[in-house]
Amino acid sequence: MKHASRPVVLSLIVAALWTAPAAAQTTAPLSFETMEALQNAANGKAGPRIVPGRSIPVPDTVSPALQASIAGPYRVPNWNANPKSATEWKQLVASLADAGAAARQAMREKLGVTIEPTVIGGVKAFILTPKEIPPANRNRLLFHVHGGGYVYAPGESGTPEATLMAGIGGFKVISIDYRMPPDFPFPAAMDDAMAAWKAAVGMQDPRNMAIFGTSTGGGMTLAMILRAKQEGLPLPAAIAPGTPWSDLTETGDTYKTNEWLDNVLVSYSGVWSHAAQLYANGHDLKDPQISPIYGDFHGFPPAILTSGTRDLFLSLTVLTHRKLRRAGVEADLQVFEGMSHAQYNFDPDAPETKETFTEIARFFDRHLGK
Amino acid sequence: MKHASRPVVLSLIVAALWTAPAAAQTTAPLSFETMEALQNAANGKAGPRIVPGRSIPVPDTVSPALQASIAGPYRVPNWNANPKSATEWKQLVASLADAGAAARQAMREKLGVTIEPTVIGGVKAFILTPKEIPPANRNRLLFHVHGGGYVYAPGESGTPEATLMAGIGGFKVISIDYRMPPDFPFPAAMDDAMAAWKAAVGMQDPRNMAIFGTSTGGGMTLAMILRAKQEGLPLPAAIAPGTPWSDLTETGDTYKTNEWLDNVLVSYSGVWSHAAQLYANGHDLKDPQISPIYGDFHGFPPAILTSGTRDLFLSLTVLTHRKLRRAGVEADLQVFEGMSHAQYNFDPDAPETKETFTEIARFFDRHLGK
Repeated sequence: MKHASRPVVLSLIVAALWTAPAAAQTTAPLSFETMEALQNAANGKAGPRIVPGRSIPVPDTVSPALQASIAGPYRVPNWNANPKSATEWKQLVASLADAGAAARQAMREKLGVTIEPTVIGGVKAFILTPKEIPPANRNRLLFHVHGGGYVYAPGESGTPEATLMAGIGGFKVISIDYRMPPDFPFPAAMDDAMAAWKAAVGMQDPRNMAIFGTSTGGGMTLAMILRAKQEGLPLPAAIAPGTPWSDLTETGDTYKTNEWLDNVLVSYSGVWSHAAQLYANGHDLKDPQISPIYGDFHGFPPAILTSGTRDLFLSLTVLTHRKLRRAGVEADLQVFEGMSHAQYNFDPDAPETKETFTEIARFFDRHLGK
Repeated sequence: MKHASRPVVLSLIVAALWTAPAAAQTTAPLSFETMEALQNAANGKAGPRIVPGRSIPVPDTVSPALQASIAGPYRVPNWNANPKSATEWKQLVASLADAGAAARQAMREKLGVTIEPTVIGGVKAFILTPKEIPPANRNRLLFHVHGGGYVYAPGESGTPEATLMAGIGGFKVISIDYRMPPDFPFPAAMDDAMAAWKAAVGMQDPRNMAIFGTSTGGGMTLAMILRAKQEGLPLPAAIAPGTPWSDLTETGDTYKTNEWLDNVLVSYSGVWSHAAQLYANGHDLKDPQISPIYGDFHGFPPAILTSGTRDLFLSLTVLTHRKLRRAGVEADLQVFEGMSHAQYNFDPDAPETKETFTEIARFFDRHLGK
């Protein structure tokens, strides 16, 4: 080592210490000067970005309620499940759905929202109705498509976002319970969504309607508009794709940069990559009905998109936003500090939750007829 | 070790490998299953987020030109300079300014923009004029405040963003050359900006004017509105604070999450922390004239904000956006895939540069009188 040059020594240190998870709570961090030298050496020429392992504090720039969500441990087994059979998938999905039943009931009570099962266009659904509907919203109807990676959140367990929108925004909401794999892979979910949409536009003037949903529900919202355009069906007056899973192929920078940082999705290599394959069932993941980012967004209704700075799907959100804008579509973007994927749907008491749905409600109010 | 439990073994591995820069180019990455176990163990209870060191590829979801910017090495010595005296500061600032002179000249020629030095309200400035000004913009005037951490980009070297706005948007732009430390700390820069603004509103109807700037220039844009409100001066019809340095105190989640990932600013602990102290010169960094995020945004003109997913100031941008919205201000947000801090100002040939300024020009067109 005596004759090794400084860059060589640095690269040996770098190589020896590479890519492991950080554990700052047990070890003292390196000095800035050491990090500066190591990082400059590792990033001294063009190429991939080399970032060090780190312990990242909970930000104090969000509400205490959101701080608690950000501090939360990884959601095991939600994020990393790897069921080996249809039976195992169904057991997992059912147990996760059951686990949240009391919280969903409490959320409805807190927000004064009632739930009623229904069938629309042959598709199972729920109607969420707030205690009071403001006069401007009485002839308006929102159409909700739930998230959950095309595998999670069947039945009533798919309705929390619809509850938040109904309660905070003061809208009547239909939330569809579309069929999912393993029994019903693509295109069953989209077939159900379109059958329900065709029936819904018979219930209310589509100019007074909006479609919204988060994650998988955001992707399906976009795919529904593509398919409605193709089939010559009426479009809604506005859409709100929240952090949409608009690309199932792990394409997008934050699939990498926010990996292990997002405490909801954590990593595409967990359950989401399995769910994508299970849903697509051999179809090309780049089919715009599966990954709508590959579709043509011209003629889309005005859209409002929501994400967070720690969201694994932040790239999908901003890429979708930019593509809508380039297609001449009016599109608003809101990005919340420190939020991981879809975290605005989790805590009805967080001010950021109220802010999210108030903004979406204002956007709908601007674009929907009365 | 024989009797160590699995969590203990994991935490020993984690501790042994902690927080060093990754060097994926020299070592094989760990398997997903290993990462899953280590990361679940490290993030199994509420608290700070433990993220591993990684090699993050250049995204293929942006233009080739932006890919080249994203791939680029850290900007040494821009990001990590640590001058020990006023003389050293001046030498550094001058040498960086000189280094870009030919590129700035080429940019003006490419965009057909001419530059003319002037003095406005006793403040040195430059007038940037595009070859053609569309009829709608002939009675409009934009006011530009350059960035550079309150230390970089004196004189003509502060004008590239003004050139891009003039050339791409087709506006006449005044770009002010405000005084900076070490000779002129706070409030000299703001005094100059306000003196120039008072003179500018005598040149054109402020309803036909907008103020814009990036980073320090974005922070100053916000501070100018706070001060204009306080002093009862006319406000512009719109503002465009790009990735604004609205908080000099290292408050905001992406100061941490995007540290070492942003290849422009890299880390607050580099030159920026020194520049903040040099500028504030003993004043409270939370003074709203220094960190405008602590000011009252009610009554602000419509604003459009721009950032990127790798930007160290992404949090400052979205926190500013949210605070404007909560104050009832019309505020648009655009976030570009993979971009580090202010990277939309760097390459006139990148489609994302054109997109950024076209969006800002459209926003101005919507809000400025003719």
